[in-house]
Amino acid sequence: MDYVNGPGRNHLFVPGPVNIPEQVLRAMNRNNEDYRSPAVPALTKTLLEDVKKIFKTTSGTPFLFPTTGTGAWESALTNTLSPGDRTVSFLIGQFSLLWIDQQKRLNFDVDVVESDWGQGANLEVLASKIAEDRSHTIKAICIVHNETATGVTNNLATVRKILDHYQHPALFLVDGVSSICALDFRMDEWGVDVALTGSQKALSLPTGLGIVCASPKALEASKTAKSVRVFFDWSDYLKFYKLGTYWPYTPSIQLLYGLRAALDLLFEEGLDNVIARHARLGKATRLAVEAWGLKNCTQKEEWFSDTVTAVVVPPHIESSEIVKRAWKRYNLSLGLGLNKVAGKVFRIGHLGNLNELQLLGCLAGVEMVLKDIGFPVKFGSGVAAASAFLQNSTPLIPSRI
Amino acid sequence: MDYVNGPGRNHLFVPGPVNIPEQVLRAMNRNNEDYRSPAVPALTKTLLEDVKKIFKTTSGTPFLFPTTGTGAWESALTNTLSPGDRTVSFLIGQFSLLWIDQQKRLNFDVDVVESDWGQGANLEVLASKIAEDRSHTIKAICIVHNETATGVTNNLATVRKILDHYQHPALFLVDGVSSICALDFRMDEWGVDVALTGSQKALSLPTGLGIVCASPKALEASKTAKSVRVFFDWSDYLKFYKLGTYWPYTPSIQLLYGLRAALDLLFEEGLDNVIARHARLGKATRLAVEAWGLKNCTQKEEWFSDTVTAVVVPPHIESSEIVKRAWKRYNLSLGLGLNKVAGKVFRIGHLGNLNELQLLGCLAGVEMVLKDIGFPVKFGSGVAAASAFLQNSTPLIPSRI
Amino acid sequence: MDYVNGPGRNHLFVPGPVNIPEQVLRAMNRNNEDYRSPAVPALTKTLLEDVKKIFKTTSGTPFLFPTTGTGAWESALTNTLSPGDRTVSFLIGQFSLLWIDQQKRLNFDVDVVESDWGQGANLEVLASKIAEDRSHTIKAICIVHNETATGVTNNLATVRKILDHYQHPALFLVDGVSSICALDFRMDEWGVDVALTGSQKALSLPTGLGIVCASPKALEASKTAKSVRVFFDWSDYLKFYKLGTYWPYTPSIQLLYGLRAALDLLFEEGLDNVIARHARLGKATRLAVEAWGLKNCTQKEEWFSDTVTAVVVPPHIESSEIVKRAWKRYNLSLGLGLNKVAGKVFRIGHLGNLNELQLLGCLAGVEMVLKDIGFPVKFGSGVAAASAFLQNSTPLIPSRI
Amino acid sequence: MDYVNGPGRNHLFVPGPVNIPEQVLRAMNRNNEDYRSPAVPALTKTLLEDVKKIFKTTSGTPFLFPTTGTGAWESALTNTLSPGDRTVSFLIGQFSLLWIDQQKRLNFDVDVVESDWGQGANLEVLASKIAEDRSHTIKAICIVHNETATGVTNNLATVRKILDHYQHPALFLVDGVSSICALDFRMDEWGVDVALTGSQKALSLPTGLGIVCASPKALEASKTAKSVRVFFDWSDYLKFYKLGTYWPYTPSIQLLYGLRAALDLLFEEGLDNVIARHARLGKATRLAVEAWGLKNCTQKEEWFSDTVTAVVVPPHIESSEIVKRAWKRYNLSLGLGLNKVAGKVFRIGHLGNLNELQLLGCLAGVEMVLKDIGFPVKFGSGVAAASAFLQNSTPLIPSRI
Repeated sequence: MDYVNGPGRNHLFVPGPVNIPEQVLRAMNRNNEDYRSPAVPALTKTLLEDVKKIFKTTSGTPFLFPTTGTGAWESALTNTLSPGDRTVSFLIGQFSLLWIDQQKRLNFDVDVVESDWGQGANLEVLASKIAEDRSHTIKAICIVHNETATGVTNNLATVRKILDHYQHPALFLVDGVSSICALDFRMDEWGVDVALTGSQKALSLPTGLGIVCASPKALEASKTAKSVRVFFDWSDYLKFYKLGTYWPYTPSIQLLYGLRAALDLLFEEGLDNVIARHARLGKATRLAVEAWGLKNCTQKEEWFSDTVTAVVVPPHIESSEIVKRAWKRYNLSLGLGLNKVAGKVFRIGHLGNLNELQLLGCLAGVEMVLKDIGFPVKFGSGVAAASAFLQNSTPLIPSRI
Repeated sequence: MDYVNGPGRNHLFVPGPVNIPEQVLRAMNRNNEDYRSPAVPALTKTLLEDVKKIFKTTSGTPFLFPTTGTGAWESALTNTLSPGDRTVSFLIGQFSLLWIDQQKRLNFDVDVVESDWGQGANLEVLASKIAEDRSHTIKAICIVHNETATGVTNNLATVRKILDHYQHPALFLVDGVSSICALDFRMDEWGVDVALTGSQKALSLPTGLGIVCASPKALEASKTAKSVRVFFDWSDYLKFYKLGTYWPYTPSIQLLYGLRAALDLLFEEGLDNVIARHARLGKATRLAVEAWGLKNCTQKEEWFSDTVTAVVVPPHIESSEIVKRAWKRYNLSLGLGLNKVAGKVFRIGHLGNLNELQLLGCLAGVEMVLKDIGFPVKFGSGVAAASAFLQNSTPLIPSRI
Repeated sequence: MDYVNGPGRNHLFVPGPVNIPEQVLRAMNRNNEDYRSPAVPALTKTLLEDVKKIFKTTSGTPFLFPTTGTGAWESALTNTLSPGDRTVSFLIGQFSLLWIDQQKRLNFDVDVVESDWGQGANLEVLASKIAEDRSHTIKAICIVHNETATGVTNNLATVRKILDHYQHPALFLVDGVSSICALDFRMDEWGVDVALTGSQKALSLPTGLGIVCASPKALEASKTAKSVRVFFDWSDYLKFYKLGTYWPYTPSIQLLYGLRAALDLLFEEGLDNVIARHARLGKATRLAVEAWGLKNCTQKEEWFSDTVTAVVVPPHIESSEIVKRAWKRYNLSLGLGLNKVAGKVFRIGHLGNLNELQLLGCLAGVEMVLKDIGFPVKFGSGVAAASAFLQNSTPLIPSRI
Repeated sequence: MDYVNGPGRNHLFVPGPVNIPEQVLRAMNRNNEDYRSPAVPALTKTLLEDVKKIFKTTSGTPFLFPTTGTGAWESALTNTLSPGDRTVSFLIGQFSLLWIDQQKRLNFDVDVVESDWGQGANLEVLASKIAEDRSHTIKAICIVHNETATGVTNNLATVRKILDHYQHPALFLVDGVSSICALDFRMDEWGVDVALTGSQKALSLPTGLGIVCASPKALEASKTAKSVRVFFDWSDYLKFYKLGTYWPYTPSIQLLYGLRAALDLLFEEGLDNVIARHARLGKATRLAVEAWGLKNCTQKEEWFSDTVTAVVVPPHIESSEIVKRAWKRYNLSLGLGLNKVAGKVFRIGHLGNLNELQLLGCLAGVEMVLKDIGFPVKFGSGVAAASAFLQNSTPLIPSRI
């Protein structure tokens, strides 16, 4: 059943799918159920209420689509926009590129603002575009909160400030796939109109839920949006929400109970503590990279991502060899460099249900792989830098005090 | 974690989602994995090869979408047709109705052929439409193999005969959601162009895979089909098939291993034996219904379904009360009557990983519920009719001989 | 991995091991833990407190041995008695026979009171022995509450009455393996000195816990009992109870969490409701046996067991053929006749986490097997008799009202 | 359900119970089964055959007791010896002490050979005792292969040499609890008469199986051994082996399937590779300890254990504080110092299904805890020493080459 067993645990450090906690595996270990019985709506009701908390919204309406992040993107766009609508979109890495590609294929008029891979979204260009757009031809700003390919986190608060400054009515659509439940995200405070994530990222579930949250303004927009949609249509969900049965088609019973367990774990730890833990692990990773004498693909500190670090390798090294060897020798799964940075970076995902010692094991593994591949790393250097920081900043586990 | 516990097993007899065998639950009880490592493509390759067997095709190309049956419908339609294209579709129950609704919302010109709920697709009307359509305005025939709402199985071989007789080039699109892996289905022999099913039906998995299989002719059509699609686009998959990495976006690791286990179980039993088992359970159910003095919603024997039986209740009984009481008192999950037959029928699903004694337990339960609700059933009558047939027709379990 | 797969669920109707509810399987689906961390003692403390409730004792001291029922027997005997001590033991079937054999091998002076298999313990003989024993040579009465081989339940209250009547100080040792958590059992009220059960019986766990509960008088006896014991010694446990670490050697982490889940389920249903459910299922089974025209191995109603029914087959039938065929053709696991009743009875276990429809499925299966084997059963007859009773007596599931 | 959740994985580095691989968790995730059906004997037969391989015996007879290591000890002793028999036993740490205590309580005449804790068994004393014992009053040599409390591995080959040299017929009884499946162990070559282990150690299963293997000489001895035994009696097992049903009482179905999966994993990796992996991890751990400037409790290299390292802390540090803090802050489970070395050592278990990066994560954690507790460790020092060795010696994972 397993195609390539190795002794011991797999060390999963791709930036998604991430490690599933045992509590969630247990919750999902169950037979199917009739989703039309009273039990599933009762469960769904708690999920819809609680999932809003991970978006930090009270006014938003969440949808739990049986799909992936790519499907969640499509749902966000087709429910709010009409063919030909102008969007401003930021191309800063592979995932923003794919979203832009989707926007084009869905027939929007995409105004692409490109940055070097390793830089954040160019918000100055956004400001000038918004300033110029007095006739409000821009219907939506589409931005990836955290570009998973380069480890770049964009400043969403600034986007909102720009829109507010010019009193521009454009919708604010955010891909929070590798940020929500891990980075500071404030849907209501930042006036985000649609935010979305996927279950296999910081929620630490299997792939299979595309979670989309719509502001009242986005819901209003959906009434007139002309993009064709059926599977991803919010209106079918809203109809069943009113009926109290919630599901226009069959949900995954296992993922619903898994989501319940995942939310319970997040709330038990405290969402702010979860975010602080990601900040701690992100910082520790960056300190290790620095100690190794390698460069972060992310070019400025303001964009540093606390969920994924893309590490630039020296020109004579092919980064995919690092990824391959890590898996073949140490049962360590690292992220490949994608597209423009293929061969040039490898990525360490540090998101989801993860703790300090798991990360340190990964960092020790990276050191060995670097040595394997011919890079003159000093053993223990990255681990030492990370440990010194973590030993100073890690709190006691609250339930064990 | 469980919202409404009851002692003992839940008796799951809705026509999907169905019971998951322990072997499949075990296979899915696992952490996430990096889907870009060599292990997942190696697994995927075996799945794509083996999944063709459940469609009985050698020339088809399968797609494992992270979606539900509704999404699989959308994928079948948008990859093969263009807005405005004329489809002939048969309205015979709730699920064909929903598919027709989707076809309309996707802007096809749907030529609806309606039958009474309880009857099969009117293929005479189809024949005359095809005969008249010398200019080939009809681009696709859309038909539900087994209408889950009424327990009606359509004759697909006849559809093919009609098309062949008139040498009509219309695509032949089949919803096999509640038939594939349970009823006799022959993609290649019947010249089906797109067939699809969902993982939570006869495959006995959780919800989450929409499995679509395209004939060479359908693949050819997808090159010119103008319907907008991104998430459901076959071309993205085909691109990654060529690369040998298979996945344009993140699959569910758990469902892939689950599918592997489900296929292994099906092949171990033998697909023809599986189909014979469904025939046996379907017949037994119908004999019970007859013994109770109740009517099958399906009006003619030629349409009897071996995966679901819709039972008509006398006018003074509200069928949803039966479903409610079955669940509340006996932990028995039956299917509601939907839409036109709401309140008039209840449904017994008898598909997936199920055996004779499970069905007999259900039938005994239905007898008690009927009594509860005031219908003068004779205790044991349905069970006796079913048992007499089953005792005569059930083979020994091959692995235990 | 599975040696003899068959389609659908196995119908497990041996009188143990019994069906494990999904909630318990989930609770046990976990990695090992350090049992010396604070978490395991915290869990153990709740278990020791709560497990007393299933014995209906407040003054007893429970022990959770990593063993089976056979080990629990040995623990009960060796901690309370010395070699040469006289016990009165009742031989009424295979399991009481095995316990007596153990008593002899442990060098006690066993005074065996034998009954026909199918009869209960002869308490009149006990009364006369106790009456005669003015010098108190009898150190312990050893009695199986429910003889699993014949489906006979003994009257423990009468045993206590006899001892009290003669003010006899003999210890009262009870095998409650197939009774506790299923039949009415009252350790304190009946003055039982040691009671024991196994996890794989009515608690519905895997095999692996021998649960022994000792009265203050039994604990007192253990201080002077001279039987050699180490693994099964209570004193090691008591030492660690005092330390608050609870375990003299490594427990099964999985079974501890499983026991927690099993107890939670029992208390949620209500122990008295659980007992009533067993009474209902036992009665229904006996009505079916009667309807088939077969005889219960248990000779008088006062001994009828609500956890297992031994069914006598006609002389020309070999009962093991029934068991074999049930498994080979219908995936139904019935209990064999053992020892003196081998070939003459088959057994239906109806204990643990089980509901009405599961039982009816089993009864329908037995009818088919009887027909297979040549017994002229009327199809549906047993099911009808059982259903008529169950439809009249089954309460609504409280959590679903 | 979980008493003290922390984010991320628990790092389980006690010397048992150890991490269970996912493959084994999956295999055990199942309902109970009738152990009298043909399936369980078929499975058992393969287990008894294959379990001999982990003892490196072809002539031994294995027993799978539903018990712990303590029970396995009792089974080894009571089946081969009679009360009053003289045993030579080596007291070198807590577990050898407990076994000696058991031997005394079982009424053997124990000739204790004591060493300082941190030293191995004094085999010179053994040699002189054997030399002197011309009348063969010594009936058994009882030795712990690997003392888990101090991390000391004894030289079993030398024991055999001594016995052979003097042609002494004493039985050779070995506790292999923390050695078998991890250290080089050769039952047949070394003429071991009884060897035993527990499932929760290097086999990486839950607690619950005490696996005992008896040589033909030991089986012969069991025929005349007068120690009282019932639950632990080999003769009951041998009787059922002959019948082909294998079980004198109910086994744990889950552990049987788990053992099957555990053995499959061991054989897939190759037993010698498993032993080499333990050697690698043991050496890496010792290099780290040295780099930290701490001392190994084990006083000579010849006794170094590859499954557990007991680390001596400076006098001003209380080692239990290290263990406590590791768990409370870093979710790291280390072993306490026990009895004589309580407060003085902490232990790192490095046995079972474990790989290099898991160990390095643990070592990095120990560094942080040492700092927490006031010991001036240099961050990264131990990890560097271990990594340098591991990077040089770790093979590629064979299935991934």
